[in-house]
Amino acid sequence: MYRTHNNGALRLTDTNKEVTLSGWVQKIRDKGFMIWIDLRDRYGITQLVLDEDRCDKELLEKAKSLGREFVVQVKGTVIERVSKNPKIPTGEIEILVTDLTILNESKTPPFTIEDNTDGGDELRMQFRYLDIRRNPVRESLIFRHKVSMEVRKYLSDQGFIDVETPYLIKSTPEGARDFVVPSRMNQGQFYALPQSPQTFKQLLMVGGMDKYFQLVKCFRDEDLRADRQPEFTQIDCEMAFVEQDDILDTFEGLTRHLLKEIKGVDVDKFPRMTYEEAMKTYGNDKPDIRFDMKFGELNDLAQNKGFQVFDKTELVVGIAVPGCAGYSRKQTDKLIDFVRRPQVGANGLVFVKCNEDGSYKSSVDKFYTQEDLATWAERVNAKKGDLILILAGDADKTRTQLSVLRMHMAETLGLRNPEEFAPLWVVDFPLLEWDEDTNRYHAMHHPFTSPKPEDMHLLESEPGKVRANAYDMVLNGNEIGGGSIRIYDRDTQSRMFDLLGFSKEEAQAQFGFLMDAFEYGAPPHGGLAFGLDRLVAILGGQETIRDFIAFPKNNSGRDVMIDAPSPIDQEQLNELSLALVTPKE
Amino acid sequence: MYRTHNNGALRLTDTNKEVTLSGWVQKIRDKGFMIWIDLRDRYGITQLVLDEDRCDKELLEKAKSLGREFVVQVKGTVIERVSKNPKIPTGEIEILVTDLTILNESKTPPFTIEDNTDGGDELRMQFRYLDIRRNPVRESLIFRHKVSMEVRKYLSDQGFIDVETPYLIKSTPEGARDFVVPSRMNQGQFYALPQSPQTFKQLLMVGGMDKYFQLVKCFRDEDLRADRQPEFTQIDCEMAFVEQDDILDTFEGLTRHLLKEIKGVDVDKFPRMTYEEAMKTYGNDKPDIRFDMKFGELNDLAQNKGFQVFDKTELVVGIAVPGCAGYSRKQTDKLIDFVRRPQVGANGLVFVKCNEDGSYKSSVDKFYTQEDLATWAERVNAKKGDLILILAGDADKTRTQLSVLRMHMAETLGLRNPEEFAPLWVVDFPLLEWDEDTNRYHAMHHPFTSPKPEDMHLLESEPGKVRANAYDMVLNGNEIGGGSIRIYDRDTQSRMFDLLGFSKEEAQAQFGFLMDAFEYGAPPHGGLAFGLDRLVAILGGQETIRDFIAFPKNNSGRDVMIDAPSPIDQEQLNELSLALVTPKE
Repeated sequence: MYRTHNNGALRLTDTNKEVTLSGWVQKIRDKGFMIWIDLRDRYGITQLVLDEDRCDKELLEKAKSLGREFVVQVKGTVIERVSKNPKIPTGEIEILVTDLTILNESKTPPFTIEDNTDGGDELRMQFRYLDIRRNPVRESLIFRHKVSMEVRKYLSDQGFIDVETPYLIKSTPEGARDFVVPSRMNQGQFYALPQSPQTFKQLLMVGGMDKYFQLVKCFRDEDLRADRQPEFTQIDCEMAFVEQDDILDTFEGLTRHLLKEIKGVDVDKFPRMTYEEAMKTYGNDKPDIRFDMKFGELNDLAQNKGFQVFDKTELVVGIAVPGCAGYSRKQTDKLIDFVRRPQVGANGLVFVKCNEDGSYKSSVDKFYTQEDLATWAERVNAKKGDLILILAGDADKTRTQLSVLRMHMAETLGLRNPEEFAPLWVVDFPLLEWDEDTNRYHAMHHPFTSPKPEDMHLLESEPGKVRANAYDMVLNGNEIGGGSIRIYDRDTQSRMFDLLGFSKEEAQAQFGFLMDAFEYGAPPHGGLAFGLDRLVAILGGQETIRDFIAFPKNNSGRDVMIDAPSPIDQEQLNELSLALVTPKE
Repeated sequence: MYRTHNNGALRLTDTNKEVTLSGWVQKIRDKGFMIWIDLRDRYGITQLVLDEDRCDKELLEKAKSLGREFVVQVKGTVIERVSKNPKIPTGEIEILVTDLTILNESKTPPFTIEDNTDGGDELRMQFRYLDIRRNPVRESLIFRHKVSMEVRKYLSDQGFIDVETPYLIKSTPEGARDFVVPSRMNQGQFYALPQSPQTFKQLLMVGGMDKYFQLVKCFRDEDLRADRQPEFTQIDCEMAFVEQDDILDTFEGLTRHLLKEIKGVDVDKFPRMTYEEAMKTYGNDKPDIRFDMKFGELNDLAQNKGFQVFDKTELVVGIAVPGCAGYSRKQTDKLIDFVRRPQVGANGLVFVKCNEDGSYKSSVDKFYTQEDLATWAERVNAKKGDLILILAGDADKTRTQLSVLRMHMAETLGLRNPEEFAPLWVVDFPLLEWDEDTNRYHAMHHPFTSPKPEDMHLLESEPGKVRANAYDMVLNGNEIGGGSIRIYDRDTQSRMFDLLGFSKEEAQAQFGFLMDAFEYGAPPHGGLAFGLDRLVAILGGQETIRDFIAFPKNNSGRDVMIDAPSPIDQEQLNELSLALVTPKE
């Protein structure tokens, strides 16, 4: 037996016990006649002690030969420490070592195994197995485990059935690019890895499974933006005989349960906001509502007063930044530079300082009276001491720009507290969005989303105006989940494929099985998927998902530890009847 | 809201309640003036009733228009049934319908949605979403969910951490064929889908995760034997600082827990048997020990008595089949035919009837006395009334043949009771097995399995004799799991790759990351994986796994429902820099 206890277990009440411990050498303090070793494992650190008086010489020499990250097994007696360490649970005891076995040696690690390591990202990824020994990474993975278990428990208790759907499925050109898998037994044919189990979960509803969930890997062969992974995990769910509110209530319950169980945070009923309202109020369909700074539209107040920049634009819109009326010229200039950066793209920025004495000082004092500015302040809900920031221009673009500025100000002012949680639902998304590249409509959510019955009559005449029974759950400015009520009749599904530019033949070849299924008694159904990686990161108070994934890939989709992807044997290619070709430029 | 209750919920105590139900029309009994409808969902069946007296005419006509598998919503009043049905939980009540909405119509299903359907396998698979509506399939999937949840709960309670390992990994030629995934972003390079997360779980141990588990899909591109799937699910586990007994104890605990929780069956400590003993006693490394019929070797008793067939062979071995002494000539002839079939391959079969009067009647009476036969009976533990069946020939082949015969007799005699559970461990598997095709040794388990320390000296001199710290859990004649103590030092791992015919370069290119990891303080570790599909099927009392998989593939690896794999666009091939080539004959 390698150990009687782990390194987080022993307490003062264990004094005089003979124990066997195993673990890694975290730290050695060698005073010559006496030596202390911190022995580490997943559960904690236990201090070992050896000295000339109480240990034989050979044993002491062996202890002195140890290096960082050596794996050792020790036998010894639990004794009370002279100088206790209140910071760790085992801090009142140490082990007087009577026997020491080196189980494995270690080369010097390429970075320190400490909470704040000296290793860069690339090095940490290459030696991820050493990185995982560090507390923050290990604790993140254990945190993920806890969240996953809690999700499963909650959904199972609510009657959801975990059904595994296949990974080797069929490629469909809709949406992002598929990863494909050549079939050896079916020459010239390919499987695809699922971007989501969408059609399968719908078929489970047709099959009467009623409530389905799965924590499932999904795959998208996209050019990776920062903090995206080619494989990611979804909490995937579907329910039959439900309306939108049934779904929102269910998954609001799940999220509230997680916040309570995992973070000890009680959250009220989630606000529900339409897509249109979110765009008007926050310029964003995933608003961070931990802080205020709601948009105030100023067209009626600010136009036709002689300031031409405002007069000729579609939208004049502002926010009140709390407590920043005292900003210096240098600070406001920096904000102007910020909004003019190509990533934001505004032409300029108008500001109004709401002074503590009730007066206003703006960059457009030439055109507006104090009374004018007071109406603006009221509209954007500015208080004394606030700074009003105003952008103007094309409505959609300006809202997006002001949203970026709003987030920037929140970040600057430290309003994005990772230990505060502000969830909401955004509902009534548009069914379709116009794609300028391909000159046609795309499904905003996916082609299986149901139009709102009251908008159905616009489907062919004004498709852009049709709203869907589609919803996103937003947490702290991140979309953590989304879903919709689905189409469940062949006719509507077929009209949808028409709208999306599928020929009848294409629709039948790719989704015929689903449309066929709708003819055999498909129930009304809908569902949702959460991004587990993101959810866990946000619950863990982090902005990036990478440390919540054991073995992530880099931005080129490579696993730098195992060095994948990599070339394969010609023999393997032959078996698959494939040849590599040089790409045309 | 589509329903106030599901179709399994209502009882006599709900009488007079106004309820709304939704579901599928299972059955209609139309008496003209009165009509009963069985309404079905996942939770049960509720009887609806409409008649001329209590319902308006239009409603009755609408009910008459319904067909099988129509999806309907009804409102009505719970009333007590006149003739109760004690077979279903809702059998004391029915719903007097006041409103009926057809939510969706249904074409006539291609097979009946009944426990015993008239649909053949291929048709059921093509319309799997209808097949899943059938109780046995739906219950199998729900059963799988229960087992999965219980496995996760148990392991998590034991301190195991569920860590997700990547699906896009690296192809390695060892073992079965990989499915590969061409990388678009890394032209000419491929990922592989994991045959198991073996190296990753070992790296998690190097990373100090201590106890890992995962329910994870694995992939093997093998020519599919009956009841194999290209994608299958493992309960994958690994532990650090453990010896073989720690692992056996842990997973014996898991299995005992599942048998208790899921099946209500208490099982004693599992027998542990060496591979050698299993082969000698049952001719099989996964013996079914629900019944006896242990092998008795007869060489010393049966050779050199003038029966040349026995004299010149390596092994004479028999079993006692209980209660079959009365077999007729026709019956014994059938057994001779059975063992002579090419699938078994024996030349013949000797039998001895142990008569109730204590005498023996054998097919070789010419050569052996009653006293001779009595010693045989003692050796194979035959009692009065038993039939001894004896095969002779080359030792390995004969054991295998007798094992097949033993299973055949057990099947014939109904000794394989699916509701009886007899688990055991088979331990001390050989490290290597000789492969006649490639003329070299293969790893019997995998190349990361540790040789037994006491056999290490044979590694280069007599590799075939080296035993491994490898073990299988066997349940009712099925291997449901297996694992090993792993190598955890670079030197031994490197020697192993040498033995398996890897060049130094190949070993480094494919498994360099693992051998590198072993140099940074790898702890002793080991683990195991259970085949979840098989485990669930056996616990469910079934021989085949297919109905415990929601969307299985057929023997050509095809999903006949979605019609995958399928050709992909030339554009997709271009993006991957791949071309299809016609296979050479």
